[in-house]
Amino acid sequence: MKWAVIGTWKMAYDGVCKAAEILEKGGIAAEAVLAGCSDGEDNPNYHSVGLGGRPDRNGRVFLDGAFMDGDTLRFGAVAGLEGFRSPSRIAYALKDEDANNFLAGPGAAIYARAHGFEERDNVTAEGLAIWQKEKDRLRSLSAYDGHDTICFTAKDRHGTVCTAVSTSGLFMKEYGRVGDSPVAGCGFYADSLIGGAAATGMGEEIMKGSLSFLACHLMEEGKSPMEAANEAVWRLDRRLRQKTGSCRPMSLICLDKEGNYGVGTNILFPFAYACEGQKPVLLIAEPADGKTIIRNV
Amino acid sequence: MKWAVIGTWKMAYDGVCKAAEILEKGGIAAEAVLAGCSDGEDNPNYHSVGLGGRPDRNGRVFLDGAFMDGDTLRFGAVAGLEGFRSPSRIAYALKDEDANNFLAGPGAAIYARAHGFEERDNVTAEGLAIWQKEKDRLRSLSAYDGHDTICFTAKDRHGTVCTAVSTSGLFMKEYGRVGDSPVAGCGFYADSLIGGAAATGMGEEIMKGSLSFLACHLMEEGKSPMEAANEAVWRLDRRLRQKTGSCRPMSLICLDKEGNYGVGTNILFPFAYACEGQKPVLLIAEPADGKTIIRNV
Repeated sequence: MKWAVIGTWKMAYDGVCKAAEILEKGGIAAEAVLAGCSDGEDNPNYHSVGLGGRPDRNGRVFLDGAFMDGDTLRFGAVAGLEGFRSPSRIAYALKDEDANNFLAGPGAAIYARAHGFEERDNVTAEGLAIWQKEKDRLRSLSAYDGHDTICFTAKDRHGTVCTAVSTSGLFMKEYGRVGDSPVAGCGFYADSLIGGAAATGMGEEIMKGSLSFLACHLMEEGKSPMEAANEAVWRLDRRLRQKTGSCRPMSLICLDKEGNYGVGTNILFPFAYACEGQKPVLLIAEPADGKTIIRNV
Repeated sequence: MKWAVIGTWKMAYDGVCKAAEILEKGGIAAEAVLAGCSDGEDNPNYHSVGLGGRPDRNGRVFLDGAFMDGDTLRFGAVAGLEGFRSPSRIAYALKDEDANNFLAGPGAAIYARAHGFEERDNVTAEGLAIWQKEKDRLRSLSAYDGHDTICFTAKDRHGTVCTAVSTSGLFMKEYGRVGDSPVAGCGFYADSLIGGAAATGMGEEIMKGSLSFLACHLMEEGKSPMEAANEAVWRLDRRLRQKTGSCRPMSLICLDKEGNYGVGTNILFPFAYACEGQKPVLLIAEPADGKTIIRNV
């Protein structure tokens, strides 16, 4: 197929529709994945990304984002960015720097301001209300208390594969926390000669197995996208259970250079996909005996 | 062999001696790799680590460090930490947190202060003099202008493999820059069922290929440490040259679970190694036709 795009969670459906329209018209993969991320970043009803994202321990919204260009392996990433509209587009700009492609904390905001990126207070009344309620309960962090990352991997008509991700990170995170999303090889990867991948879930777990890089490596070794995504997720899941007795939620999407998708997940995980000749669909991936089954919604 | 330890650069020699002494006496791998990093962090003559580390663009010294425990895959990491003695030991403490194991910027300093870690101004007169001189030249960043990370991977008598790394990062880096060192799978990795690995060099390049994770993955697939380290480095080197025409310096050390070492590098790279029955030695790795040759100093 000439183009394809995959995105994480139900919230990626609209983004996949926008990306598909761009790709169908001949637009490039970078434009498509950024359009997907922007759709999530600007929607206050998605509580784990951009505007209205989940606040940290102190009630502030800090965003993480990344972009990788599979033609050059160049990437940009920001972590702990406060007060800007689009971490994924700032990451896209950072990929063109000769060095300092990954910026965290106030340094990321300084870069964004110097480069004229739109500033925005991402704290919403609704986001703050959820935060206040949870804060009062003072409960310990549990899996998936709002750390869903919106991720897109797309392949365009020129054969370029790009990946972009955006998230407010772990709900109630500590100030300065860096999750997997802005971490190359963990939260995102792309190589146009192979394909692309991106992860969502408990970042502290995902970083223990470089999931996005591994999925791409396995595709390069000849595995199908489904085989690669499953092997990456389940190998780490088994290893962590073997070593520590448990493994927290992790989900991985990937796309090969032909545009075929793969998903591996150890929890119920909706995702969206579109390709040439196939309208955007929302699908559900669910774990079954160390494999992943895909079904319609 | 019952124990082994490897460290990056000539500056790791003293640290390898200290680590070897600990391991020989039955000490654990964590203690050994942290002793190695501390040796580097406390020596003002090593200009890319800890005290006297290379300042950033604004003349401030920000440190990165990480620790990974191969028994559990738990890791801790700090990036952009200012004003503390030992980033590697703070990373070691962070590995025991339930989440928020990777902290960057002021958040890392808040954690370190709250946990009673020793504060220290790492800016030295000598470090500042070098900075002033370079600043005046305003030249563009070139490879290896002081971004040598001190890294140690050790295996102890119990079969535990740990990796720890410490660096002041890229000389003249921008405020907030995160290199490969605190990034899991890129700058460091350890799994006692496989071995451990760590990287030094141009972090922005190393992060394009998750080098430390890949070396461990290849060892798990049956490659020797030398084969694994070489395949990881040269695969990325070739890919970057193919895609962009160049690849900046990268060096990778690894250790398998038996204690055998491997090194892959695309530049001249000294390293230190010791194991049961073999006194610490300083060796030189040099690239030759897409392979790495090891020779005595």
